Amino acid sequence: MANENLTAVLYKKKDLHLENTVIPEPGKGQVQVSIQHVGICGTDLQIYEHGCFGDLEVKEPLAIGHESAGVVSKLGEGVTSLKVGDKVALESVFGCMACSDCKKGNYNLCEDVKICGTPSTWGSMTRYFVHNAADCYKLPDNVSTEEGALMEPLTVAIHSCRRAGVCLGSKVLVLGDGPLGVMTVQAAKASGATQVGITGKHQYRLNIAKKIGADFVLNVTSKDPKEVAMIVIDAFGGKPEISIESTGVQSSIQAAIFATHNGENVTISGLRENNVSIPIVNAGFREVDIRGVAANAHCYPIARAMVASGQVNLKPLLTHMFALEQANEAFKTAETKECMKVMIKCSKD
Amino acid sequence: MANENLTAVLYKKKDLHLENTVIPEPGKGQVQVSIQHVGICGTDLQIYEHGCFGDLEVKEPLAIGHESAGVVSKLGEGVTSLKVGDKVALESVFGCMACSDCKKGNYNLCEDVKICGTPSTWGSMTRYFVHNAADCYKLPDNVSTEEGALMEPLTVAIHSCRRAGVCLGSKVLVLGDGPLGVMTVQAAKASGATQVGITGKHQYRLNIAKKIGADFVLNVTSKDPKEVAMIVIDAFGGKPEISIESTGVQSSIQAAIFATHNGENVTISGLRENNVSIPIVNAGFREVDIRGVAANAHCYPIARAMVASGQVNLKPLLTHMFALEQANEAFKTAETKECMKVMIKCSKD
Amino acid sequence: MANENLTAVLYKKKDLHLENTVIPEPGKGQVQVSIQHVGICGTDLQIYEHGCFGDLEVKEPLAIGHESAGVVSKLGEGVTSLKVGDKVALESVFGCMACSDCKKGNYNLCEDVKICGTPSTWGSMTRYFVHNAADCYKLPDNVSTEEGALMEPLTVAIHSCRRAGVCLGSKVLVLGDGPLGVMTVQAAKASGATQVGITGKHQYRLNIAKKIGADFVLNVTSKDPKEVAMIVIDAFGGKPEISIESTGVQSSIQAAIFATHNGENVTISGLRENNVSIPIVNAGFREVDIRGVAANAHCYPIARAMVASGQVNLKPLLTHMFALEQANEAFKTAETKECMKVMIKCSKD
Amino acid sequence: MANENLTAVLYKKKDLHLENTVIPEPGKGQVQVSIQHVGICGTDLQIYEHGCFGDLEVKEPLAIGHESAGVVSKLGEGVTSLKVGDKVALESVFGCMACSDCKKGNYNLCEDVKICGTPSTWGSMTRYFVHNAADCYKLPDNVSTEEGALMEPLTVAIHSCRRAGVCLGSKVLVLGDGPLGVMTVQAAKASGATQVGITGKHQYRLNIAKKIGADFVLNVTSKDPKEVAMIVIDAFGGKPEISIESTGVQSSIQAAIFATHNGENVTISGLRENNVSIPIVNAGFREVDIRGVAANAHCYPIARAMVASGQVNLKPLLTHMFALEQANEAFKTAETKECMKVMIKCSKD
Repeated sequence: MANENLTAVLYKKKDLHLENTVIPEPGKGQVQVSIQHVGICGTDLQIYEHGCFGDLEVKEPLAIGHESAGVVSKLGEGVTSLKVGDKVALESVFGCMACSDCKKGNYNLCEDVKICGTPSTWGSMTRYFVHNAADCYKLPDNVSTEEGALMEPLTVAIHSCRRAGVCLGSKVLVLGDGPLGVMTVQAAKASGATQVGITGKHQYRLNIAKKIGADFVLNVTSKDPKEVAMIVIDAFGGKPEISIESTGVQSSIQAAIFATHNGENVTISGLRENNVSIPIVNAGFREVDIRGVAANAHCYPIARAMVASGQVNLKPLLTHMFALEQANEAFKTAETKECMKVMIKCSKD
Repeated sequence: MANENLTAVLYKKKDLHLENTVIPEPGKGQVQVSIQHVGICGTDLQIYEHGCFGDLEVKEPLAIGHESAGVVSKLGEGVTSLKVGDKVALESVFGCMACSDCKKGNYNLCEDVKICGTPSTWGSMTRYFVHNAADCYKLPDNVSTEEGALMEPLTVAIHSCRRAGVCLGSKVLVLGDGPLGVMTVQAAKASGATQVGITGKHQYRLNIAKKIGADFVLNVTSKDPKEVAMIVIDAFGGKPEISIESTGVQSSIQAAIFATHNGENVTISGLRENNVSIPIVNAGFREVDIRGVAANAHCYPIARAMVASGQVNLKPLLTHMFALEQANEAFKTAETKECMKVMIKCSKD
Repeated sequence: MANENLTAVLYKKKDLHLENTVIPEPGKGQVQVSIQHVGICGTDLQIYEHGCFGDLEVKEPLAIGHESAGVVSKLGEGVTSLKVGDKVALESVFGCMACSDCKKGNYNLCEDVKICGTPSTWGSMTRYFVHNAADCYKLPDNVSTEEGALMEPLTVAIHSCRRAGVCLGSKVLVLGDGPLGVMTVQAAKASGATQVGITGKHQYRLNIAKKIGADFVLNVTSKDPKEVAMIVIDAFGGKPEISIESTGVQSSIQAAIFATHNGENVTISGLRENNVSIPIVNAGFREVDIRGVAANAHCYPIARAMVASGQVNLKPLLTHMFALEQANEAFKTAETKECMKVMIKCSKD
Repeated sequence: MANENLTAVLYKKKDLHLENTVIPEPGKGQVQVSIQHVGICGTDLQIYEHGCFGDLEVKEPLAIGHESAGVVSKLGEGVTSLKVGDKVALESVFGCMACSDCKKGNYNLCEDVKICGTPSTWGSMTRYFVHNAADCYKLPDNVSTEEGALMEPLTVAIHSCRRAGVCLGSKVLVLGDGPLGVMTVQAAKASGATQVGITGKHQYRLNIAKKIGADFVLNVTSKDPKEVAMIVIDAFGGKPEISIESTGVQSSIQAAIFATHNGENVTISGLRENNVSIPIVNAGFREVDIRGVAANAHCYPIARAMVASGQVNLKPLLTHMFALEQANEAFKTAETKECMKVMIKCSKD
């Protein structure tokens, strides 16, 4: 039936319902996708736990989820780039395409940017979802929809490395051992960094980071920022050029600044605490720039090529899979941190 | 006599003595300069008032001063680029020239960078000073030593504009109405910015800013950061692309972040408060980068060309002149802010 | 009557007819513009003289002209950004807005880029013209439609300076004394270049270049490339950092390469001769990059702000004005080079 | 004895003598190196075959060779960074360190740049060589002097990739199958390029290129530039973003331009033919930049880290080894192209 479209809908913080919604029909330039897999990321968790995303509050029921891949199930008018049955990964960030930022290519910086699964843009943790065909990236045969869903955080990791200027020969510190941090290690290595170390507080996750290629992992539980910086500098044999901070926690941002080499940068991909105290004289007088990361722009083709060619192997990061009906349990598992990527299987079988 | 070298020596905070020191002899590659003029900047004032420069304390007597120009009075061995009688401006920042930062051209970011007049590098508020010939820039006939001394803060303003990426068509907000702020207005206009506004709290100084070419001046005394940002955005008719903050004060840095357009940057040239609270989610998610300014590198030739060609007129900024013997009085005047640039005439006549 | 739309239509080389065409009606998102002024540029002249633009031949009747400004005379469906009576300058370059180049903001590099007045895109030397509202830039009261038409080559000059990296302190050589060369002098000066020299072969034009601000002009008629380079280096007192070549003539491109400082670039804005002999070992081993200029992208707002603020004065460049009925005479005048910008008045009165 | 220093000295083209020279003593800041291995590159071959390097002629006897590594055998005054017995790779390019280019870090672009083994700078194909300690890079235990010598062309390949902007996700075409071309494939892959193809005319060499990681190899013997471009575009499934041309041959440079995507660049690392015909309208109107490569700057630390970490494996490129006494035979082998890197063992045992 047309309304048998099971969807994970958040009403307010920690109040997530599985309910049937109407199966949406694709409009002009759109496709309907039978969603196969949706990952849960830190942002989803924040929205689930706090009922808000930065300043944006969940005021109306919101389908959650934005790391998704599926199979095209219906074509809207005029779509020729895809066909029914194509496996696709869905880019979840889109701009108005009319403002000067969008015209210059910075659709992720549009004043009216939309991100699926954040207030008030419908998310993709659902059986059937409608999306612009232009934002659906066809997956080659050798890439699964699990990997397609994992490509979303990978694009953020890629965009972080691009914002940070990671290149051949870079020494890169990654702070934070969640999926974004670990994928940032992978993206930095793939970008030619000769030394990539990672700090974190969860040994379970650091072990995975080590496995997928971190040159060293540092468990920094209960250490102060200057101490962390000293440990890092010692491990690198000098200050790393670039630090990519994926937690958004004040002490970690401070450690990143103290650790980073003069004239280079700290890039913050995990935005969490609204206001943080920054040692600005230390950073400024050494010209250590502080750069943020707004999701991604233009990174899906790169992510797809990396996965398809084997340049990066995302599979070790997928540690837990739940059925859509188990969404609440999945979020609770994600909260434990005794996991890397927690994913939902949205299709029935 | 060889020790008749009047010098302004700081012993501890607010304890500045005028005393005779030995006239220094130039070594290999050096020149002796009969200093004519030395300006007082915010950093000098900070050292004078607090007895320290960031973490560096004045522990031994320190000749203060680093914005200086004079006349070459003696040549050291091997110097061929200058001759006795040449008017010169003195660059006061120099690196070790052996580390990898110096080799790459970033001498201002050298771990062992020295700045004249900061602990523990002898300053130039003195009759006779010895300096590397390579760091002395010959002034053309139409440039005075007063202007030569003013070129030092101009290089910081230039470097700030370069760090910030000010270019043809930029809309630039300058925060802070001291000499550095006002010169940043000049450097931004000279760089092709089509609209340059400045905020400050001293009407005396804002009037000068208006006179030298600011498109608008905003007196923002006792306003909160978000309110300042709204006033700025209103004045520009939209968010300025670039904000250059020259005070180092937390509320001003916050205002700069709130005011700046997505995907652009806030550059901080006035480093003062060691730790400031930054609205990092606001900045980061809009990819508004935060960049510091470490003095200058490679900007003296540009500053000289700008002054010599008339591209910039620094004279309206020189509001107060004191004899070297009146150095204490000069510092007290600088503290009032009822002045723009306060300068010391170091030569006897 | 609906077909009283006088238009300059080129049938083949040197075969330009003034004929009445149907007055076009604006579609969705479009406006109808009562064209007031259209300039003639080197490209127009090339199409007029040779019946082709690069590889593209004039195979069907083509309205010529692309440097235009006018008054909005009718609004298409959904247009809210403009109103009838607005003065507008028309951007004449547009991409498909669907390919990856357009998405990244490089609409001027789209594989399917269209330029008004080139085969096979209808030009604007006509009474009434229909254009996308998004490509019409509203002129403020103090900017005339003559200046609006002159903004088109100014955007190319601006784009050239941006491609070349002209910035505060640059020493810039401009080669070629046509309108594009002279406007490039203006754009380079406005970008903060401290020294801008220009070479050319027409004293009439060099005199105008001098008048609008060139630091020096060099008449280099019948000199070989190495000789020109020596004269230039002598005039600058050293190699200029950047050379912008606006003629597309082999000998001039060669002179630019020989003259340019190591590690900098020669930017070619005047593309004319399809194949040129380049001293590649000289250029390459000194890392003097060679960059082309494809019209402009994102430069109209800058051009408008420059003209409106008085940062640039385009009026001295407008030397000849003809009625639309005199279009053939106008082209003949442009061929003489005893002119700077030749313009057509398209409206009746 | 002090003059038992066998050295390969070129008198004029194809006139290479093995003769004993005086063993040089290290001066202040220098070290004496017992050279172990020296590679032969295209430049050496050009000097050997033609008796000149670009415009520079061999007028006096010249020790040839610049791709070298050895063991420190004696320390000059003041050297503390190295000790006797250290394995080192020798950087062969150095500037005056006093001009503005050197000060900005561009020592490879110094007007007075010196390159060992080119007129008139003594080369390193000798038993004992004296070099600045600062230009000797200590090799870790797991890197051999064979690899140390191979690091010289690797730095050129790295510098080429940096000049070209190769980064994560790039599609890169390398033209030319000599050691530099093949190492460029390696450097591009290490920089994160997702697709790297190579063209060449020697199946022996293309087989090695395939083995070390080229995604595809194209034998393009006797094909015209447009045809090569079509084959390349077909192989990539679209125009590659970046082309790196390592032969310096006109037809190959032309093919690179025709093949490269709009808005990207052709970087020429193999400078050979002094003047080449460039399709400048094609390149310029598509903003395909043309960039040269002047040896390298700041790439030795990167090359060393790449080799030490296993990021790149240079060993498959070393196909022929000769004793110093067989230098003439080595050059003749290099001329056949039925080889990849030909190397000389300079030490006695």
